Amino acid sequence: MKILVINCGSSTIKYQLYDMDKNEVMAKGRCDKIGLDTSNMIYKNLITGDKIDQEPAPMKDHKEAVSQLISVLTDKKIGVIKSFSEISAVGHRIVQGGNIFSEAVVVTDKVKKDIDYLSDFAPLHNPGALMGINAMQEINKDMMNVVVFDTAFHQTIPDYNYRYAIKEEYYTKYGIRKYGAHGTSYVYILGQLEKLLNKPKDKINAIVCHLGSGASVCAIKDGKSYDTSMGFTPHEGLMMETRCGDIDACAVTKIMEKENLTPRQMETVLNKECGRLGVCSIPDERQLIEAANNRK
Amino acid sequence: MKILVINCGSSTIKYQLYDMDKNEVMAKGRCDKIGLDTSNMIYKNLITGDKIDQEPAPMKDHKEAVSQLISVLTDKKIGVIKSFSEISAVGHRIVQGGNIFSEAVVVTDKVKKDIDYLSDFAPLHNPGALMGINAMQEINKDMMNVVVFDTAFHQTIPDYNYRYAIKEEYYTKYGIRKYGAHGTSYVYILGQLEKLLNKPKDKINAIVCHLGSGASVCAIKDGKSYDTSMGFTPHEGLMMETRCGDIDACAVTKIMEKENLTPRQMETVLNKECGRLGVCSIPDERQLIEAANNRK
Repeated sequence: MKILVINCGSSTIKYQLYDMDKNEVMAKGRCDKIGLDTSNMIYKNLITGDKIDQEPAPMKDHKEAVSQLISVLTDKKIGVIKSFSEISAVGHRIVQGGNIFSEAVVVTDKVKKDIDYLSDFAPLHNPGALMGINAMQEINKDMMNVVVFDTAFHQTIPDYNYRYAIKEEYYTKYGIRKYGAHGTSYVYILGQLEKLLNKPKDKINAIVCHLGSGASVCAIKDGKSYDTSMGFTPHEGLMMETRCGDIDACAVTKIMEKENLTPRQMETVLNKECGRLGVCSIPDERQLIEAANNRK
Repeated sequence: MKILVINCGSSTIKYQLYDMDKNEVMAKGRCDKIGLDTSNMIYKNLITGDKIDQEPAPMKDHKEAVSQLISVLTDKKIGVIKSFSEISAVGHRIVQGGNIFSEAVVVTDKVKKDIDYLSDFAPLHNPGALMGINAMQEINKDMMNVVVFDTAFHQTIPDYNYRYAIKEEYYTKYGIRKYGAHGTSYVYILGQLEKLLNKPKDKINAIVCHLGSGASVCAIKDGKSYDTSMGFTPHEGLMMETRCGDIDACAVTKIMEKENLTPRQMETVLNKECGRLGVCSIPDERQLIEAANNRK
């Protein structure tokens, strides 16, 4: 069985084709800057080593990008499959499943409507993912599409951990609570722990760190997410590549006042211009060494 | 030696008169809602038990409030001292000393200017404190006034702990960093630990919790503040009576967008309408018990 996995952003598509029987990745690639003149296309056939790294590779929207990635996967010379029909299903990664989705589901019209509704919580991610699903459905209306949510694993977090101490109506009207993220990663790690510790999942208690450009920590209790560092959005918690993580809420309002920023502009600052890449002087090596020594 | 200690807010004054030789409080009281028709005055003589609880007690500004508290302290019937000149010095509590003050200092014109400059960081607190100092100086120009800063104790926090991972210029231009608070409380507790543990201060390592309406935690290392939960303002960290403490920065921007709030309005929400008093349903008793049981 072959599964195509797609991770769509607002202007990017990353993909991998899996051979599930052999448990291996057959091909992978990405389309970047979709809709721009400078859009490009990267593809690698992991069986033969054939590669494409084409720029510009014009693709005016997600549908064109998906068409191109299918063309290259089925290309006579450098493709890994003969026909798109060899693929049994397409899996789409969705950042925000809110409190609607606690597991992966097969895409239906209702599911698409819910993902669209949740775009308010993940304006940079959910609409892009929806474009990817629509593109796939337009190209092949019979393909099974499955959506996998980054937040689903955290739906077991109890209310005293997921609620903020804010007005009730901010929660009931706007859904402001902790949703967490990186759930697919924690599910995988939990599976690995099951093997490594030789214990059933529901007996596993662990603090798991997911450390990448985005970074979070999760407390797993009896095999379920009990708490996690990411919050209403992936911004909360640890310092990351382009996010500062935890910061005084009144520092946020102060920066907005001083820089005359709208809430949306401030969100861009928080998610793209902060973190390790957003600062010049900390944490530099000296300070990290000093901190490490001090903590000994 | 008698010391009058004053804690001024924008519309309140709390005070206590100490007999330092006997290590006891001679009198205490407060003026509330200064400037409003409903302002009131509470006073208690702790030696005789005499009390005043007067409402309304008209006082149009901080100067009138200070005059009244001096009158009552020196009142022939219910006062505790005969003359204001018995008081050796007045101590003023100041919330925000920024990175200018790392210890208590005697008030000079320069000191007042610095406190005023720092009002930008503590708009609800520093201006009130300054009004109290000015009132005291107008009433008795020879009185020694000393300012004690809530932030001073935390000036030993190393940069890798006090900096946020935000743009360098937000720090250099706007001073956005961790300042902490409750420093006077931590200094006192450190002194108590010195006695209880029979150790010199600089050998004391402790995690200290200051739990009241406002709440924070401090890591004391070698007798110095090494890190603390309050940040740029007292909002950060633990959930408090009227502050939610840590919250996803993007939840802050989302609430502002949904409720169409300015940064200043949002600060009011964060500091007055959140926390234990700002929510209806959490943490209720059931959840706290459940949480406690789960954590066993």
